[in-house]
Amino acid sequence: MAGPKPGSSATKPKAGGKKEVKKETGLGLTNKKDDNFGEWYSEVVVSGEMIEYYDISGCYILRPWAMSIWETMQVFFDAEIKKMKIKNCYFPLFVSPGVLQREKDHIEGFAPEVAWVTKSGESDLEVPIAIRPTSETVMYPYYSKWIRGHRDLPLKLNQWCNVVRWEFSHPTPFIRSREFLWQEGHTAFATKDEADAEVLEILELYRRIYEEYLAIPVIKGKKSEMEKFAGGLYTTSVEAFIPNTGRGIQGATSHCLGQNFAKMFEINFENEKGEKAMVWQNSWAYSTRTIGVMVMVHGDDKGLVLPPKVASVQVIIVPVPYKDADTQGIFDACSATLDTLSKAGIRAEVDSRDNYSPGWKYSHWEMKGVPLRIEIGPKDLASNQVRAVRRDNSGKKDIPRASLVEQVKELLESIQQSLFDAAKEKRDVCIQVINTWEEFTEALSQKKMILAPWCDEEEVEKDVKTRTKGEMGAAKTLCSPFEQPALPEGTKCFASGKPAKKWSYWGRSY
Amino acid sequence: MAGPKPGSSATKPKAGGKKEVKKETGLGLTNKKDDNFGEWYSEVVVSGEMIEYYDISGCYILRPWAMSIWETMQVFFDAEIKKMKIKNCYFPLFVSPGVLQREKDHIEGFAPEVAWVTKSGESDLEVPIAIRPTSETVMYPYYSKWIRGHRDLPLKLNQWCNVVRWEFSHPTPFIRSREFLWQEGHTAFATKDEADAEVLEILELYRRIYEEYLAIPVIKGKKSEMEKFAGGLYTTSVEAFIPNTGRGIQGATSHCLGQNFAKMFEINFENEKGEKAMVWQNSWAYSTRTIGVMVMVHGDDKGLVLPPKVASVQVIIVPVPYKDADTQGIFDACSATLDTLSKAGIRAEVDSRDNYSPGWKYSHWEMKGVPLRIEIGPKDLASNQVRAVRRDNSGKKDIPRASLVEQVKELLESIQQSLFDAAKEKRDVCIQVINTWEEFTEALSQKKMILAPWCDEEEVEKDVKTRTKGEMGAAKTLCSPFEQPALPEGTKCFASGKPAKKWSYWGRSY
Repeated sequence: MAGPKPGSSATKPKAGGKKEVKKETGLGLTNKKDDNFGEWYSEVVVSGEMIEYYDISGCYILRPWAMSIWETMQVFFDAEIKKMKIKNCYFPLFVSPGVLQREKDHIEGFAPEVAWVTKSGESDLEVPIAIRPTSETVMYPYYSKWIRGHRDLPLKLNQWCNVVRWEFSHPTPFIRSREFLWQEGHTAFATKDEADAEVLEILELYRRIYEEYLAIPVIKGKKSEMEKFAGGLYTTSVEAFIPNTGRGIQGATSHCLGQNFAKMFEINFENEKGEKAMVWQNSWAYSTRTIGVMVMVHGDDKGLVLPPKVASVQVIIVPVPYKDADTQGIFDACSATLDTLSKAGIRAEVDSRDNYSPGWKYSHWEMKGVPLRIEIGPKDLASNQVRAVRRDNSGKKDIPRASLVEQVKELLESIQQSLFDAAKEKRDVCIQVINTWEEFTEALSQKKMILAPWCDEEEVEKDVKTRTKGEMGAAKTLCSPFEQPALPEGTKCFASGKPAKKWSYWGRSY
Repeated sequence: MAGPKPGSSATKPKAGGKKEVKKETGLGLTNKKDDNFGEWYSEVVVSGEMIEYYDISGCYILRPWAMSIWETMQVFFDAEIKKMKIKNCYFPLFVSPGVLQREKDHIEGFAPEVAWVTKSGESDLEVPIAIRPTSETVMYPYYSKWIRGHRDLPLKLNQWCNVVRWEFSHPTPFIRSREFLWQEGHTAFATKDEADAEVLEILELYRRIYEEYLAIPVIKGKKSEMEKFAGGLYTTSVEAFIPNTGRGIQGATSHCLGQNFAKMFEINFENEKGEKAMVWQNSWAYSTRTIGVMVMVHGDDKGLVLPPKVASVQVIIVPVPYKDADTQGIFDACSATLDTLSKAGIRAEVDSRDNYSPGWKYSHWEMKGVPLRIEIGPKDLASNQVRAVRRDNSGKKDIPRASLVEQVKELLESIQQSLFDAAKEKRDVCIQVINTWEEFTEALSQKKMILAPWCDEEEVEKDVKTRTKGEMGAAKTLCSPFEQPALPEGTKCFASGKPAKKWSYWGRSY
């Protein structure tokens, strides 16, 4: 994706300088989602007040409008993992080089992106210290210490924290940033069965975050050997798709690490028979990337579109006074409406500012993606009703104040469902089943998410990458879906012509 | 304080090595609180499973037992500041050097402790990047951008995050660590009155965290010019006291920054008269240090003592089976008790492990500081009661199962109050009012928290520091309490003999 670079003149704060603020002089996006997706995205996250670009490239400020969405997902996920008896902890931000490098495949995957602290104040540190890109190597020496016998298992910890990956390719708010917020779960079990089961249980929570909260359809599946987590046994993921760019995006990952880290970090226990055994481990994470996927999938040319379940303001109430009308009555009706909705647990606000017109306010809250607008003017006041306008499809409805709560709740549920349905419809038309290399390249040029029979050989995936290299980036596997279509005897791999072993999704990706 | 260094042999995890785990071979602390406070503290935070020492000096692992206390305080404070319409956000971990150095007094205060990232992967960064020691300079360039007119005010943001201060003096778990977790609030107002009012409103929340949650008495007051926040106008704090070491400890701070940062970062707005004006700013923070103060104040020779309001397990239920007794009946009664307590919202657990004796379990949960133990043996089963044992004073009580919830709730409230009362009594006997230099040095040698009439001159505070330098560390002002005793005309400063302007607390401090 080729969004403007963070810190470009459009968004960079001028030190001390105070330029005109756009929102006060004219609303609306200058880029259109279908014409110029990268620029549209960069513009909408800033104009919607989710993000402010920061003076260090690849770092972004998460403003309250974005943070509240993160917090809503956090409340859900944290309660769910606590039900699973997973406990929160906090491990240090810093890793010493020896520990970081203990697992070879793992560090190879992360080394180029590791940020190093070498100085404090004016003094050089004796040894440079790494900032965690992820915490496997931070945590597992202590798992080795804490786990002795089978009664110490399972050990199930999670932490909410920041991590740093100093990437140089195309930083994009939420999607690819040098620092991001996430949760990372790290668990250890006596048996592979238990580890396998947890991998899927967590993956289901990730599906629910995307589908139930963010209204984004995702595909559950397994990553290829090339795409799996460095040092792990296998990786499962939920995969979303951005129709505008024709790119898949890894939504969240739940890894079974097998016994590889256990071996490197000597995480052993005495089993019930008194024998020494190695633990089976998982790690799993989702990050603030989720918010970026939500913006990309639902946003439109008027701005953000927030699913009601994650919107910090679900209903914005706008008074629409006229010259000769009962202005005080209108403001009172707005307050009463706010009160009724708030008491019913609906997150509502009144925009009672006197220096903006109702029209300006409509545009402003559309830009911010508030799911439902309630307008109250003289006519509504007279007939004891309010007018409700949906953000997702501009549908309008007059609601008698007597049935306000009931109907607003219905509307919010309907918006949540409609957003998911619309996103699924758009995603589904982008999925193309193919069988041959010609069909594959054709579908790729049409920005499809391609479902293809594959021999499941690493060399073939490498070959596909090489053969599809180009300006837009190479194609790779997204995942092999758990829901596999029938694979008739004799089906051949689209790329190698060898016998196909499974169906896999392929495409370009973020 | 002279606790063992983190990473010392007593606690350092041996890479790969597996030494005997103490808790399986013998319980109890080897150090006594009154004999050997520093060692006792280091031992109790580890044995109580709050902390694990980490292989980088000054960094500590917060285990779930500590993290859950942090989360309880977070839930309280976060809800309170949201009522005040303060919103959460997240600013980057990194600061560019130019911005960091914009406010001269401020950076002088932090410069020696700033950690610098100079490399990513194998490459040197073009410019070294600092890790935030606090976020004033990270945030305020954007406050300058976001604040234009009086309608943009107040701007009230908070973030929950980690910060890094690479200190070299005596790292101590929770109390002084190189990375710690905190919240930092940063607010901007049109008027000084609003800023002043918020400083106190936040300080009151900090008092409530200490007194209502952690059961620790604190003194609210104002810091001296020497001790105030670097670059700010004035600093208020809640001050706690550790009788064992005779040291005050700054519990949390609420700063009025005045207009100094506004000037440096050009945070201006157009007021209602259309004139350009500068904002008034506050910043305020409390950190995981709170947990360390709690351990120091309440812990005893058997281990941690947790106040019920912050304990993740408030009641531990221990089955006490005897050979010929109805073991199944006892276990069933434990389950039923757990069920009854859980449904009443009391955080309870059963320790049903079959490889430990009841006696071992008593010691184990005493070490971890669980406020109330419930024992159920054959006699209790027969008389349809349970035996409750308080952690704070070992008080025992037989409770009929019919009034279980009511009496357990009463006991937990009583424990919470007793802890506070006992801590206050111990603290109060350490407070000494003095009037002369002789009385001052005598009280200091007795490890008192000294309340003294003072001329409020910076030179005099410097002079007191110089004159009290020694092995134990110099004395300084802790705060000037808001509750001022009468200051009769003609009262002289204890140190300078000049006319006293106020009463101030003095002492050694953390």
